[in-house]
Amino acid sequence: MAISQGPQAFPRTEFLRRLSAVKSEMVRQEVDALIVFNTHNITYLTGYTTPSGYVPEGIIVSIHEEETIFILRQMDAPAAIHQTFMSRDNILAYPEALIGRPDKNGYDAIIDFLHEKGFEKRRIGLELGELRFHAVTKFRTRVPNARIEDCTNLVTWIRIIKSDLEIALMREAAAISDAAMQRAAEVIRPGVREADAVAEITAALARGAQGKPGTNIPEIALCTSPRTGTAHIRWSEDVFREGSQINLEIAGVRHGYTVPLMRTFSIGEPSERLHRVHDAHVAGMDAALEAIRPGTTCSDVANAFHRTYETYGFRKESRCGYANGIGWIESTASFQNGDMTELKPNMTFHLMLGNWFDEDFGYMISQSICVTESGVEVLTSTPPRLFTL
Amino acid sequence: MAISQGPQAFPRTEFLRRLSAVKSEMVRQEVDALIVFNTHNITYLTGYTTPSGYVPEGIIVSIHEEETIFILRQMDAPAAIHQTFMSRDNILAYPEALIGRPDKNGYDAIIDFLHEKGFEKRRIGLELGELRFHAVTKFRTRVPNARIEDCTNLVTWIRIIKSDLEIALMREAAAISDAAMQRAAEVIRPGVREADAVAEITAALARGAQGKPGTNIPEIALCTSPRTGTAHIRWSEDVFREGSQINLEIAGVRHGYTVPLMRTFSIGEPSERLHRVHDAHVAGMDAALEAIRPGTTCSDVANAFHRTYETYGFRKESRCGYANGIGWIESTASFQNGDMTELKPNMTFHLMLGNWFDEDFGYMISQSICVTESGVEVLTSTPPRLFTL
Repeated sequence: MAISQGPQAFPRTEFLRRLSAVKSEMVRQEVDALIVFNTHNITYLTGYTTPSGYVPEGIIVSIHEEETIFILRQMDAPAAIHQTFMSRDNILAYPEALIGRPDKNGYDAIIDFLHEKGFEKRRIGLELGELRFHAVTKFRTRVPNARIEDCTNLVTWIRIIKSDLEIALMREAAAISDAAMQRAAEVIRPGVREADAVAEITAALARGAQGKPGTNIPEIALCTSPRTGTAHIRWSEDVFREGSQINLEIAGVRHGYTVPLMRTFSIGEPSERLHRVHDAHVAGMDAALEAIRPGTTCSDVANAFHRTYETYGFRKESRCGYANGIGWIESTASFQNGDMTELKPNMTFHLMLGNWFDEDFGYMISQSICVTESGVEVLTSTPPRLFTL
Repeated sequence: MAISQGPQAFPRTEFLRRLSAVKSEMVRQEVDALIVFNTHNITYLTGYTTPSGYVPEGIIVSIHEEETIFILRQMDAPAAIHQTFMSRDNILAYPEALIGRPDKNGYDAIIDFLHEKGFEKRRIGLELGELRFHAVTKFRTRVPNARIEDCTNLVTWIRIIKSDLEIALMREAAAISDAAMQRAAEVIRPGVREADAVAEITAALARGAQGKPGTNIPEIALCTSPRTGTAHIRWSEDVFREGSQINLEIAGVRHGYTVPLMRTFSIGEPSERLHRVHDAHVAGMDAALEAIRPGTTCSDVANAFHRTYETYGFRKESRCGYANGIGWIESTASFQNGDMTELKPNMTFHLMLGNWFDEDFGYMISQSICVTESGVEVLTSTPPRLFTL
């Protein structure tokens, strides 16, 4: 029996608007067909969120066709029919015999399609920055007469400005981040194993908030004393102790849209140093938030943070944040000195102010934000506090 | 203050043994320096499990040095000092200024090191199959006089035979898979939201089993009617219903070692078709397990399954499993017709017998197994049942 189309996170018109923006850019970059491999870009253009991208899959956007073609593994084609807005005729399954072979793989199916549709001598845009070396070699060998253009961030730059519908979904994801952070504050206690706290936090990320379940559980970083100088350790086999500091980074997700949130906890009274660090971060964060508005640049935002922060006697080497939306990080703009990307309404960023001072001491705070017509909206509602438990 | 070395999953001798095997293979392949980028191979050679590999990082194995060099982002260097067996002098941090830039990145730091150590005219092994196109271009441009060899699966093929210590860790991970599958059987009930069941299952994966916490929560696939014809959908916003079938794929993890487990549940009496499918799978699985012993090939195991399975009138297109260990899938051997990899003691596989018959009907069952001296050990203890709830 046929699988039915499932509930969609967005109306068809939203996807057609996105595709139309991509096609305009393709015309500008003189590309006849664009093949999109980045899984977040595939989500953006189709609604597909199934984590099947560990084997080749791609969508083909042609400037001559309204809809796209999605070529993926046979095993995953029903998921694409169910999850995407696409007509089933545009979802093409390649055989399972292309999995786990040294010589052939799903890229051959995509290349066969290009030949079949007469693209083999046209201008083909590839996300070269997304593709592994052997895949590019295969394209160059099997489509030698095409003019291959590097369109690595073509779709990603379009994603940077969200629609109101996307922002609404990110607010739902933000509520999940808040719920999970609140759960963390309830369960982190002396004597509790870090893993048991993680169990409760991940459960909260799955349950969601306001009746909307989480649709994915991304990586959690829970860096507890003596590991607060590390940034991305998941968690350890220790128990929390009186006097422990805990740096926690989580993200709620709705249909691919990911809203990260970082906070620092102290079991017992924070040290004087931790208090000073926190105060400097909140002052710097306020300065950065104050700077965010249409027309200013990413560089301006970072420098607003640094100017204020450095008056407290601290320095931060790592960037102050990055564009985000579908997936944790969008590889376009960063809040860092020299990034001249101009802020526009409905851009979203993770204002990431974590800082790691010594090998054994760091601190985390962040806000996921949306640029508004007049300034900024912080998407989460967790206060920017140093949580004392 | 300096961060201390944390508890290690393996003694130093185990890592030196692994390195020694890699160096022997490097000599055979005439490579002076091997750069390892695959995050699972990095875990194998160092003990590092922090998910920081979304930015460039790599270890450099030289045939002339006992220990390796680990080059990674400054923010993550303390985690490497804490988690790995390596001397801190061999962990080199590259500056945060290389993050989020269009022109330079962490690969430049690795290339600088190659020049500094005089490798720029030597034979350098790269995991070309792991590297994105732009990274390979950078190596070819900036180290033009090196002879670059493709060593994509050099380390991965060594990983395929586990030590007894690795098998012991996989048994711990298997116990976690069992605990989470049992939790699933307790919480999947009519009227329960899929997300709430996932909350309980992921919590069980974090809590672990037998006093050993889970150290990661990998992807969960929970494909419920009408989505049992899909393979990798995470979960949906639905509730379970009387008569629902649920295909569940999970994996417990200990220090990177991942033991997958798939089972099918039915709320209420399974359909006659589902019973028949289940019986065919169990018979095929028994035939495959019977075939597994040192000296037989992966192809033999697949064909043992197919021969028995097809007597029930079914066919399975997808491969019957793959090598696994650190991470869900090792990209070496597969249980499929034509894969002539010879089984040896302490090889581990996910015997993956899921099959998707129609767009709206599929079935999941699997066993994670270890090849023993005389046959096979199934690592998990969950019975190969069709669970009726």
